[in-house]
Amino acid sequence: MKKVRIDVRVRYVETDKMGVAHHTHYFSWMEQARTELMRQNGLSYRELEEKGYMLPVREAHCRYRHALSYDDEVTVEAELLEIGGASLKIGYRLYRGKSGAPSAEGYTVHPFTDKGGKIVKAPRFFTVLFQKE
Amino acid sequence: MKKVRIDVRVRYVETDKMGVAHHTHYFSWMEQARTELMRQNGLSYRELEEKGYMLPVREAHCRYRHALSYDDEVTVEAELLEIGGASLKIGYRLYRGKSGAPSAEGYTVHPFTDKGGKIVKAPRFFTVLFQKE
Amino acid sequence: MKKVRIDVRVRYVETDKMGVAHHTHYFSWMEQARTELMRQNGLSYRELEEKGYMLPVREAHCRYRHALSYDDEVTVEAELLEIGGASLKIGYRLYRGKSGAPSAEGYTVHPFTDKGGKIVKAPRFFTVLFQKE
Amino acid sequence: MKKVRIDVRVRYVETDKMGVAHHTHYFSWMEQARTELMRQNGLSYRELEEKGYMLPVREAHCRYRHALSYDDEVTVEAELLEIGGASLKIGYRLYRGKSGAPSAEGYTVHPFTDKGGKIVKAPRFFTVLFQKE
Repeated sequence: MKKVRIDVRVRYVETDKMGVAHHTHYFSWMEQARTELMRQNGLSYRELEEKGYMLPVREAHCRYRHALSYDDEVTVEAELLEIGGASLKIGYRLYRGKSGAPSAEGYTVHPFTDKGGKIVKAPRFFTVLFQKE
Repeated sequence: MKKVRIDVRVRYVETDKMGVAHHTHYFSWMEQARTELMRQNGLSYRELEEKGYMLPVREAHCRYRHALSYDDEVTVEAELLEIGGASLKIGYRLYRGKSGAPSAEGYTVHPFTDKGGKIVKAPRFFTVLFQKE
Repeated sequence: MKKVRIDVRVRYVETDKMGVAHHTHYFSWMEQARTELMRQNGLSYRELEEKGYMLPVREAHCRYRHALSYDDEVTVEAELLEIGGASLKIGYRLYRGKSGAPSAEGYTVHPFTDKGGKIVKAPRFFTVLFQKE
Repeated sequence: MKKVRIDVRVRYVETDKMGVAHHTHYFSWMEQARTELMRQNGLSYRELEEKGYMLPVREAHCRYRHALSYDDEVTVEAELLEIGGASLKIGYRLYRGKSGAPSAEGYTVHPFTDKGGKIVKAPRFFTVLFQKE
């Protein structure tokens, strides 16, 4: 499963009175990168939900190293870290611009559930596509 | 139908790099006041949805007069302006503290729809409760 | 001054329990389009603030016609509607996909202020660049 | 330093198409509880910033156990976990209603910085007030 990188730009609404991006929005950017990670590996999250599965967030973590400012271009990298029988773990790195040291790093953990929120086994069509190389 | 007032406090996440509350959040506060307007007049929005009706937003307007700062206590007043056969209009005033000139004023317009989003007539149990005095 | 179009995609965090994009986020998309309108006409909003000017929102309006769903690609068009001595008005149209009838339309009005929030005359370098054709 | 509990209600804007509160908003609720933790222990965050100090977020973590629904009343508990010479760690528990098992748990870590974002030692007036019992 290949890594994916997306580009976002810090929006005014995402800044706070410190003049930098508020920490909560990093989790939205991670989600956006996670969506593209799935799409570019062959199955969009929208399709997954249409097939009756959901991937709610069980755990979310972010380590902030350097603040991001309004209008900064940010690259968000997402990659599969682990895939088990019933959950997966995705890792993220955020960079100001295209390179250099990461401005932030994080991960999220997701169980597979059915539409009612009940935890289920990862569907085979998913594990085949998204197995870790 | 009686007016309702709620108190909110400007949260850090709601400020922007101008150091004041970002304009988008006023619409969330109006929604919060609208929720209490319904609850305190006898039918919560949650119950309305459980009965199979929704009130999506067809129109939203806000006029900003004075900026609101981090940690400011804000009173949001909501009142029914119009109720027709298929939609209603709600007006809002936002005050810093409890009195004085409004910091902002706005309104929203809402059609009644069924769960599929199709426009329907206002249900009678609603118009009876929420008729304008 | 030329019109500008940007593409956004409805993010999961922007949906609500009706299953569609929550109305507040349209105002963030408009802001994003406004930012690109300025940048592509020769002066980014970031630069304007660095020169000591701000364009807070005095008025915001949106008319919602058709709901937008998760993962929909949305085109947001922004254009200058009016420019006066001390304020400007910008209009927006949102389309699902690239064409068809707009899903929503709106406008915002912005006074020019200095860094302290005091209303000032539009700076000449701005009106020269952004005069309405 | 005493624990603090605040009550919030899940707002419509905070739900997503799964029908539950989106995971990003838990971090805003934690921030809201952190603000009250400081205020009720004698120094509001607003005052701390006025004195020239900031507490940006260096690390944020949340473990989600049970989903929270629209209009649910949520109690958010915040308490000081650690205070060192240059940073502090705060822990959170979120409950649906007033009791029972937590719906989520988290923590945040904050360095002390000056207004320019440079890391500084915890000011003495702070450590005196906020020492862990």
